[in-house]
Amino acid sequence: MALLEINIVPIGTESPSIGEYVAEVVRVCDQHGLTYNLTDMGTIIEGDADTIFSAAKMLHEIPFSRGVSRVLTHLTIDDRRDKAIHLQDEVKAVQDRLVQKEKAA
Amino acid sequence: MALLEINIVPIGTESPSIGEYVAEVVRVCDQHGLTYNLTDMGTIIEGDADTIFSAAKMLHEIPFSRGVSRVLTHLTIDDRRDKAIHLQDEVKAVQDRLVQKEKAA
Amino acid sequence: MALLEINIVPIGTESPSIGEYVAEVVRVCDQHGLTYNLTDMGTIIEGDADTIFSAAKMLHEIPFSRGVSRVLTHLTIDDRRDKAIHLQDEVKAVQDRLVQKEKAA
Amino acid sequence: MALLEINIVPIGTESPSIGEYVAEVVRVCDQHGLTYNLTDMGTIIEGDADTIFSAAKMLHEIPFSRGVSRVLTHLTIDDRRDKAIHLQDEVKAVQDRLVQKEKAA
Repeated sequence: MALLEINIVPIGTESPSIGEYVAEVVRVCDQHGLTYNLTDMGTIIEGDADTIFSAAKMLHEIPFSRGVSRVLTHLTIDDRRDKAIHLQDEVKAVQDRLVQKEKAA
Repeated sequence: MALLEINIVPIGTESPSIGEYVAEVVRVCDQHGLTYNLTDMGTIIEGDADTIFSAAKMLHEIPFSRGVSRVLTHLTIDDRRDKAIHLQDEVKAVQDRLVQKEKAA
Repeated sequence: MALLEINIVPIGTESPSIGEYVAEVVRVCDQHGLTYNLTDMGTIIEGDADTIFSAAKMLHEIPFSRGVSRVLTHLTIDDRRDKAIHLQDEVKAVQDRLVQKEKAA
Repeated sequence: MALLEINIVPIGTESPSIGEYVAEVVRVCDQHGLTYNLTDMGTIIEGDADTIFSAAKMLHEIPFSRGVSRVLTHLTIDDRRDKAIHLQDEVKAVQDRLVQKEKAA
């Protein structure tokens, strides 16, 4: 199982705001039943390699379908085959680790 | 005001787990009074350019101080000088946009 | 046409060297007739969106096929639909711009 | 010694071209005597941690000084403390590895 962080930036849009494109990313994720988290720096999607690469390809098209001519897309994939990973697992694991350390101190 | 997403990866560590280093990132952010959010894919820190570059440099050293000999650090900076940006602003703006669209529909 | 920069990092490999995996990326690119450039920080591949997403998915599997259990893959896609972009275009355009500026000065 | 890949994207610029900003990155690197390589996807700079973080902070300011109000900067740092790393080292190492493999085959 893997997590994908995707960040899509339209280039040459006049406005410095890109919220319109992020909102469309969220809508498309909902329509396709994807499990995701919206953060300040991108959208994190959970799934196996097939799911996340399909999602990435689909989401990358969003600004083009709205008339943008150049898109920069950044993708980070964290893929583990030794165990399942889900959204919020890493956050919880780190928080648990911090609590244990405090108790031990 | 800017947001920085930082993701620090120790290379050559035997274990596939990197939670130990992420926990230390959180501890150092707390010690230095930084405003941050932990996500599944990194840590997002809020501040002006001086604050976030200082933070990045400091956090990048964490794995070295724990004996790691090679570190890959990914940083994404979203810096706006036309208005203040804070953690969760973008997330809220996108959620508001989605709600308005639903009402209009 | 688009450019894809791909950087694949195996996690938990004992050795801090990752050249073995990069060499395999190059071999697989050659086998599939992809047009690419190897840089110090990744491999840049030229193609349309279909080509580069297929390539990304295939290359991301390399460390798993060599026994690694966790892989972090970073992808950056620069996709223009208003004109063809090829490897070295941007580099040449910037160099031309610098030469013109010098002549004008 | 470390390598830094820096990619600076101005947001809200009307034109889909960003070559003007990349050219300025190259000029500033030259003025400051930095050792760098321009690639299709960014600029790779060689130096110790102090050098590359100073360079990153300085280069990130370029679009703001030209009137842009929002800048997205992506940085990737590959830092080894077990041996010196220089531009083109990794590329040469991978090419040598591929030649050896061919000879062995």
